[in-house]
Amino acid sequence: MMVTDPVERAVIEAIDIDGLLAFLGDLVAIPSLDGASGEVAAQEYVAAFLERLGCKVDVWEIDFDELRRHPAFSAEVERKRGLGVVGVGGLGNGPTLIFNGHVDVVPAGDESLWRFPPWQATIADGYVYGRGALDMKGGLACAIFAAQAIRDAGVQLRGRLLIQSVIGEEDGGCGTLATVLRGHTGDGAIVVEPTELRIAPAQAGALNFRLMVPGAAAHGCVREEGISAIEKFMPLYRALTDLEAIRNAAARLRDDPISQLYRRYSLPYALCIGVVRAGEWASTVAETLVAEGRYGVAVGEDLEAARRMLEEAVARAAQADPWLREHPPRVEWWGGQFAPASIPADHPLVQTTAAAFADTTNAPAILEGMTYGADMRLLVNEGRTPTILFGPGDVRNAHRPNERIAIADLRIATQTLALTALRFCGIA
Amino acid sequence: MMVTDPVERAVIEAIDIDGLLAFLGDLVAIPSLDGASGEVAAQEYVAAFLERLGCKVDVWEIDFDELRRHPAFSAEVERKRGLGVVGVGGLGNGPTLIFNGHVDVVPAGDESLWRFPPWQATIADGYVYGRGALDMKGGLACAIFAAQAIRDAGVQLRGRLLIQSVIGEEDGGCGTLATVLRGHTGDGAIVVEPTELRIAPAQAGALNFRLMVPGAAAHGCVREEGISAIEKFMPLYRALTDLEAIRNAAARLRDDPISQLYRRYSLPYALCIGVVRAGEWASTVAETLVAEGRYGVAVGEDLEAARRMLEEAVARAAQADPWLREHPPRVEWWGGQFAPASIPADHPLVQTTAAAFADTTNAPAILEGMTYGADMRLLVNEGRTPTILFGPGDVRNAHRPNERIAIADLRIATQTLALTALRFCGIA
Repeated sequence: MMVTDPVERAVIEAIDIDGLLAFLGDLVAIPSLDGASGEVAAQEYVAAFLERLGCKVDVWEIDFDELRRHPAFSAEVERKRGLGVVGVGGLGNGPTLIFNGHVDVVPAGDESLWRFPPWQATIADGYVYGRGALDMKGGLACAIFAAQAIRDAGVQLRGRLLIQSVIGEEDGGCGTLATVLRGHTGDGAIVVEPTELRIAPAQAGALNFRLMVPGAAAHGCVREEGISAIEKFMPLYRALTDLEAIRNAAARLRDDPISQLYRRYSLPYALCIGVVRAGEWASTVAETLVAEGRYGVAVGEDLEAARRMLEEAVARAAQADPWLREHPPRVEWWGGQFAPASIPADHPLVQTTAAAFADTTNAPAILEGMTYGADMRLLVNEGRTPTILFGPGDVRNAHRPNERIAIADLRIATQTLALTALRFCGIA
Repeated sequence: MMVTDPVERAVIEAIDIDGLLAFLGDLVAIPSLDGASGEVAAQEYVAAFLERLGCKVDVWEIDFDELRRHPAFSAEVERKRGLGVVGVGGLGNGPTLIFNGHVDVVPAGDESLWRFPPWQATIADGYVYGRGALDMKGGLACAIFAAQAIRDAGVQLRGRLLIQSVIGEEDGGCGTLATVLRGHTGDGAIVVEPTELRIAPAQAGALNFRLMVPGAAAHGCVREEGISAIEKFMPLYRALTDLEAIRNAAARLRDDPISQLYRRYSLPYALCIGVVRAGEWASTVAETLVAEGRYGVAVGEDLEAARRMLEEAVARAAQADPWLREHPPRVEWWGGQFAPASIPADHPLVQTTAAAFADTTNAPAILEGMTYGADMRLLVNEGRTPTILFGPGDVRNAHRPNERIAIADLRIATQTLALTALRFCGIA
């Protein structure tokens, strides 16, 4: 640790890792699936915790009828209720920094594939296991315990520190949009997504799509009298795989500063078909197939142009098939529609966070673009708030069985966030 | 009509087509889906009708606990109740002929694709529309109204005529198995499946299978870190398509009398994958894929050898893929397991039915093998009863929207069945 300033040292020493793990455990135990009642319960839990921390806390019912009219609104799930939660600390005479984290999580999937029950936090091998431990209740815990350490060390921030706890990130970002539109913006924001503690001034876009492939039913014993939607899906799948290869090869040829942040990835703009549903009866030729996927979009790429490129790839493949030419497959854009976003790599927020990380770890910070869609785009594009992604854990462990986060990462992230707040907001 | 015998003419003139259509309409209106309460209701309706016809009727509760222990038992659906129904007419001093028809039907599928409501019979363009009208309540109606015509003409059969109304044909044939095991066998049987009025002394086998393909989940943004079960399904699908081609090419090379009955089909032994389910979330790499299909088996082919051939094709394709080699896909055999069956084309039952058809229509009967699995196998293999498939309608209209049967076919089938009964059982 290269931190010599006594105030900074006091804050770092005040970090309560045991408390952080207990808080994270409580939060993992609330199954805050998108649109389910746990999403509200998790927000109520965080709001109460922030109150006890001595923050001014803004808690409000999100008006979805209103929100849905905004052009950046995107959601896959119908919600009856949703809460916004923002805790505010500091005096407000200096710059405003935001820590943003979401409480919503994806489903647990096949629970038999989990080493430990997904809906309780289990500590093993230096990791916290559980659905949401990584994505991203862990990061949110770091943000809150960084703020608690500042308070516990008796430090008053000159600027303001906002802790935004949001819902709906996994299904399109409605919570952060509502928070930004309520006026909770700032001079800088850190979305505490699992970046492996790398600093990401860029976030790729990700668009959900649905592909509907028509067939014609027939008894399986005369299958040649029908048209299998499963069979007809194959060339379309190949066309999408080819499109992904072409787009990523083209991206590798670009040499601008943002593109350089994506050098590490073999497929920065992945096209993933995650769901396929076809047919109803083993011995009936499948008359429809529905595939759902996510489509990666490069920073700076126009969303409409990207959508058109996919639609054209599907249409071209359909033209090559006599049945599909007459019965064209349809493409729908639904659910998460994540625009890309970026800020300059030399922005003060980036520099401050990088230095805080380096001082915490005695290792240089790594700057990198992230390939997943996240709420950064809403803070940058709608909230006009320079934003980075920075947080503990490896996204490779997200959205799968045995989701987990290293306790060592939680410690480094909390220290880095605390130092960044002290330096970005200033001390009163 | 080349029928000159006055008794035969009297029977044919006694056929009540209006009554047949009314009976068929009543039966279509009972949604006798496999395992649903309508299956029992349809059997009760048929039993009451046979009683009024003056048959001795055997109605019994099927003991599924007992039946399940039989090696030929096969069912996809758990049933609480099932009825057996057999009506018996004639004196019993001559040969016994069986008419066998099932009352169970497959689901209606997407009802919006139907011209008319599936659960009521609608007459249009010379057809009766409705789920089950063709497969095979229409054929059952012909069998019953052939018997009614014999009674109405005042003719007493020397042998016995059994009308077997059965359940569970679509999901594996439990009803006919129960009927045969109760001792209702004979010297000949006609299963009134929709054969387009062709006479089928052979029935292919059909085996339901399930293919489970493993993948590994990952966030869609790093899809290359996961293994898509959808991607891994592709070479297995190709392997199964190739297997189908090879098996059917080999069948075309065979020149025995039974193989000749399958000359008309491009794919007599079709392999159809009807259902695919993969993944749970658009932006998560699919960690499992389940495909369900039916696998055609040639007459005379050993079932175990056929199953092994499919399992080996899957295993070979898996060997060619590094992931599948380490994570082998699994094949399960479930639900309908229909053995093939045949009788010699020169059997007296075939000849009698062919002559009856020719006399009815002034056209030669066409002998052909059927590619679908049906209850014939249980009568032949378990009941030791020489059996053919012969009935009205085209199987291409089965298991799909707008199922229908031509009224002209119903008339010819009823006449042919009546003449066959008179000639096979003899007149007292």
